[in-house]
Parts: sequence; C-alpha cells; structure tokens
Amino acid sequence: MNTNNYGQRALEAHKSAVGKLSVELKMPLNTVDDLSIAYTPGVAEPCKEIAKNTQEAYTYTATKHMVAVISDGSAVLGLGNIGPEASLPVMEGKCALFKKFAGVDAFPIVLATQDIEEIIKTVKAIAPTFGGINLEDISAPKCFEIESRLKRELPIPVMHDDQHGTAIVTLAGMINALKITGKQWSEIKVVVSGAGAAGVAVVKLLVFMGLKNVLMLDTKGIICSKRDDLNPIKKEMLSVTNPDDISGNLDTALENADVFIGVSSPGVLNKERIARMKKDPIIFAMANPIPEIMPEEAKLAGARIIATGRSDFPNQINNVLAFPGLFKGAFKCRAQNFTRSMFVAAAHAIANAVENPHEDCIIPSPFDPRIPNLVADAVVNIYQEEGATLVWQ
Amino acid sequence: MNTNNYGQRALEAHKSAVGKLSVELKMPLNTVDDLSIAYTPGVAEPCKEIAKNTQEAYTYTATKHMVAVISDGSAVLGLGNIGPEASLPVMEGKCALFKKFAGVDAFPIVLATQDIEEIIKTVKAIAPTFGGINLEDISAPKCFEIESRLKRELPIPVMHDDQHGTAIVTLAGMINALKITGKQWSEIKVVVSGAGAAGVAVVKLLVFMGLKNVLMLDTKGIICSKRDDLNPIKKEMLSVTNPDDISGNLDTALENADVFIGVSSPGVLNKERIARMKKDPIIFAMANPIPEIMPEEAKLAGARIIATGRSDFPNQINNVLAFPGLFKGAFKCRAQNFTRSMFVAAAHAIANAVENPHEDCIIPSPFDPRIPNLVADAVVNIYQEEGATLVWQ
Repeated sequence: MNTNNYGQRALEAHKSAVGKLSVELKMPLNTVDDLSIAYTPGVAEPCKEIAKNTQEAYTYTATKHMVAVISDGSAVLGLGNIGPEASLPVMEGKCALFKKFAGVDAFPIVLATQDIEEIIKTVKAIAPTFGGINLEDISAPKCFEIESRLKRELPIPVMHDDQHGTAIVTLAGMINALKITGKQWSEIKVVVSGAGAAGVAVVKLLVFMGLKNVLMLDTKGIICSKRDDLNPIKKEMLSVTNPDDISGNLDTALENADVFIGVSSPGVLNKERIARMKKDPIIFAMANPIPEIMPEEAKLAGARIIATGRSDFPNQINNVLAFPGLFKGAFKCRAQNFTRSMFVAAAHAIANAVENPHEDCIIPSPFDPRIPNLVADAVVNIYQEEGATLVWQ
Repeated sequence: MNTNNYGQRALEAHKSAVGKLSVELKMPLNTVDDLSIAYTPGVAEPCKEIAKNTQEAYTYTATKHMVAVISDGSAVLGLGNIGPEASLPVMEGKCALFKKFAGVDAFPIVLATQDIEEIIKTVKAIAPTFGGINLEDISAPKCFEIESRLKRELPIPVMHDDQHGTAIVTLAGMINALKITGKQWSEIKVVVSGAGAAGVAVVKLLVFMGLKNVLMLDTKGIICSKRDDLNPIKKEMLSVTNPDDISGNLDTALENADVFIGVSSPGVLNKERIARMKKDPIIFAMANPIPEIMPEEAKLAGARIIATGRSDFPNQINNVLAFPGLFKGAFKCRAQNFTRSMFVAAAHAIANAVENPHEDCIIPSPFDPRIPNLVADAVVNIYQEEGATLVWQ
C-alpha cells in the first residue's frame, strides 16, 4: 500500500504548507475609502438590510454560501475515535474538495464533545453562520439521530456524507451495473455487508429504488428477528430487509445473491463465497483502503462487475462525485433540505454521465469536470418540481 | 456623514462580491496523486501524529492558526441587538482586517443564542478548531463574564476586542498625549464617559498603568457608593475609581480634570464642559461615527489634544492597530492566554512607533505597515519573559 510513500509525503506536504486552507479577501482593503465600504461606516447598511430580513444574509455575505464540515472525530477514516484535533486534516481535506470540485466554500468545525445532545445544540448554535451543514466521520449509531434531528430542526440543508454521499455514488454505480447485466431492482437479491452509517444509507436508498430482497449483515451475521442484540437503527432496518427472515452468516446470505455490497472490512469476501452467488455477480467491495476482496481475485471467481473505493482500480465509488454538486445545487436554489428525491436524481445524473457503461466503466472519474454541475442541476430541478419538504428520515 | 455615500456603495460592493471572504486551497488538488497526499490515504499520517499529541495540530493544519471571530449580534456597531445573521458583514469585515493587516487567517462564527452559559458552552465546543478566539460585539455586562470564563476555561488566547482593542489603542494614544503635555499617570485626573465594554477595559488598563484619580460615568452619572442601581461590574469599577466618592453628573466630574475619555454618545461634551477642565485638556471623543464633541469645537474650547474614532480627523483611535498583531504574536509563541502585560507592551509598541509625537500625531495611521509586527514582537517578548499565566480578569 505504501509504494508511493503517501504517508511520509503527506506529513511533509501538510507541514510545509501548514495545513490546506486559508481565508482570503474578496473585496479590496487598500485605502481608507476601501475600509469605509468593507467595514465602518459603510458596513452598517448591509447589516441593516439583513436585520430587516435574515434571508438577505445570502445577498450580502459569503459565509451564508459556506458549508460547515463538522466532526466530533469519533469515526475518522479507518482510524476510529481519534478525537477532534486529529480529525482536522481530514476535515480540511473535505473543505478543499468542496472548493476544488464545485467552487463551494467550506470550513471545518471540530467539536470538543461526542455527546449527541451537545453536538446537536452546538451545531444549531453556530448554524446562522452557514448555508449548509456537512456532518463527517461521526460514529454510528449516534450519527443517525444527530443528522435526523438537525434536518428537522434547522432551516438549512444538512447531510451526513458518510451515509448519503456513499449511498448516492453506490446507487449511481448500481444503476449502470444493472443496465449492463440486464437485472431489475424488483427481482435482484442484494447482500450488504456492514451496518454502519454507509450500510444503512445504502440499503435505505436502494429500497427506495424498488429493491425488495436485501439482506444486511453486521459482524454478528444477518440482521434478523431472532437477534436480541439489535440497536434501534438495526431494528428499523429489519423492517425493510430480510423478507424471509433468514438467519446466518455471509455464506448463507450470499446463496443466489445477485449483488454484494461491502462497506465492512478487508477480506470479508473470497472466491468460495462469490461461487455461491447467481450468474454475473456484481461486487462493490468498498472497504478502504483494503477492499473486502481484491478486484483480480473477484474477477477470477467470476464477478462480472467489481467496484471498489480505490483510485488505482476501475470503478471507483468516490463520494466526491456527489457532495460538492449536492451543496452547490442546494445553494443555487436555496433548498432548506436535502430530500431522498434529490439523492436519486443526483445518482441518475452521475450514472448518465457514463455514455457507454461497460464492466470496467460503470461510474465517471472523480475528476470528470462535468459532474458537480450535473449533480447541482439535478438538485435544482427536483427542488423546482417538488420543493424540499422532508418526507423521510 | 453620507457625502461619500458609503452606505449605498457598501450595499453594492457586498452584493456584487457576495460578501468579503472565501476559503482557498494551500495544497494542490489537480491529480490523483495530489488527492492521495491531501486526502486519503496520505492524510491518515498527519491525523495519527495529532492523535498522539494534539499540539501537533499546529504543525499540520491551517485551522489551528486561525482566529474565530465570534458574535451573538447583541451589540453590533451602533446598531444594537440586530441578531447573528445581521452581524455577519461586520464579522466578515473583522476577519478581512486580520488577514489584510497581519496575514492572520480568521473566520466568523455567529451564534443563535444570546444566553451567557450557552455562548460559553458553544465556544468551548468548537474551540479545538481554532488557535484563538476574538469575541466581538457582545453586549455589556454579559461580555465580561463570557470573556473571563473562556479565558480561564480554554487553553488558547481569548480576547473581547471591544474591550481590550479599544483599551490598548487608547492607552497608546494616552502615552504620547502625556508625553506631549508633560503630565504623569499618578497625578492626573481622568474622566471616562461610558461604562460599557470599552469604558470598563480602558479604566482597568489605565489603573494598571498607575492612574489613581479616575471617575467613571454611565448615563445616570458618576459611579459612586450612593448609587443603588449598579450592576456587579460597575460595583467592581467603584473599587478602583472615584477615590473621593464624588456623586454627580459630567459637569461635576470634569472639574479640574486633565483628561476626558468618551466611549459613550454624540454630543455628550461641549465647550462649557471643557472650560471646567485643567490647562491643556486631553480629549479622546471616541463615540462612533459621531464623537462626543467634534474636533474643531474641542480645539476652540481649548483642548490641547483631541482624538476620535474617525479616519477623517487626526489621531484616530482604531482597534485595527492592536488586534491583528496581538493574535499574530500569540500564534507565533503559542501563548495560551493574553495577559495585561501583553496589552501594555502592545500599547507601548504602538505609541513608540510615532517618532515625534505632537498634538496632531499621537498615534500611527492604521495603515502603518510596521505596526502589526511591532505589536506581535511585543507580545512574544512578554511571553518569553513572563509566560502567559493569567493574573487578572
């Protein structure tokens, strides 16, 4: 993994640049006259306009067009609960991606608390500063309650990217994978390995698309009614998964499955397990940086399509295809919320950007410059059609 | 006041630029390799270093070198309690000044609460993001408790600029005014009109300098022991002011005074009142934008030295001489606090930058490019001499 020595080079690059972000001026401040416009006494006028109508903050300030990238550092990359300060390089990176890919300004906020109520209170307290909230690397299951509460209690779009970014790009890849294999949502059997933030969001979005037969597994096996160790979110997932209430492990689950979606751990999948699946199996092995099965091995075992989270193999399922455009679109139409319809529209926009999908190209490159605007336009169109009323959690 | 049409031009400028700040990248993000350094997988290395020692956040992130400019919008300019959103143009302006004058990155955070405990909790919750906290436009008296608690409870420098920025630059101007008039701290009588954030901080800093005879007035008159309407901070001020426990109004207070310092309202001072003062009166009329007395009128009434908050008269007492350099210095030496000694050293650095002080030049121009570094060096020197242990509130 370290043939390119990314770790050492990252340390040096971060140290010599002293981090990845700076705050810069968009209005001149060179003369007394400039100061009188940008600051006192002139600045009182935009203040007064906003005092009359807080929506005018979108007209006269930059911050209201800014995304807060918020983390408590409880589930950072594969590093686990490393705390707020240690999560800063990732959050700065996320902000850099927002800017680079969609021209959306974003600022990291890391929190000195990992308590659900305190996180919600803090985010609500600073929310007038921002135009949108991107929750990041907050551990499951608390991420579900935090996101759902903030979505309901704030008048600006809120999204936990570990959930929905992953779900949208997975859906985009799946749309093209089904096109290639000629399979239908209503007929396929899908196995999702991993019941954390990403797994839950992927299952919810695929069920919304019409998927009927989906099994979800955590480290203890298939989520089923016999289990007495299910937390509330897993109980909720039971109601939309496992129609035949099967119990067992991944071997059992994969019997005659069409699709394996891994948001779990390296090495969970192997040749023998793929052999249990139906013809033309579709494998999304998204554990990062080491996938549930390496692409070569999956192909040898008969996988028709294999996607991973990695840039050094074809079919990279990368959130960056979704989140920059999602917020860009929401800002454009001033949507007060993200809706499931917007996520589906975004997935279709990403999938459709691949003109001739084939086994090694079900998803565009993260550097495809068309994507952020395609996703943003999809969000705006949905907003114009149906608003942003929350009909789901 | 509006001959230059600042208000209308400010509206247009803010609208066409959409606010004053943007977040920009300091590391490239053009290739897959760039992504692997700035984001996954490389970013894990700086994360791990910081997880081992949170101080390493200063080595590998930009945000830890960033000031949070925090307001609840409760006392914005002369506009009063206009709320968080409406305060954003001022907070963005403040951040722009930090960057322009000292190269210090700063980001505005406005709060959806005006409750003391909630403000303190929120600032503490987001503090791991930042290297320093600049409190701004928070109303008195709650600003005192908020600042004092945060100073004690956070390991990074915290300053309420409406208090200390004003106090430092006032002190700098006073140092040169006393030099010109040959007066001594221990002998002069000073009258401070205004007992809000600025007035309290000015009095505390001048008393720290050796001033013995100072009277402080709010809208009800001189703060004295006969008053039964004093809030806790005014009671505290009583213990360091008004040695003869005089009661009365501004007329009484100005009898034989050497110095008038106004942080109050337009028109509070007039010729007749100046006539009550000692020879060579020193007038700091800092109400903004309309001072307690206009400079021409003060001169006609015999003022030896007149300073205001305005850029269109000589001797502008402008906070921008202090705050950018203060934080630049604190970041340079990683001071955990601002101390009173640092404020005095900063004031001396500003005062000494005027080589030949005279009546119309007691303070440098806010655009004097030497000032931020002089102030920063003063902070660093004090920190190296005596650390940053808090011995005052």
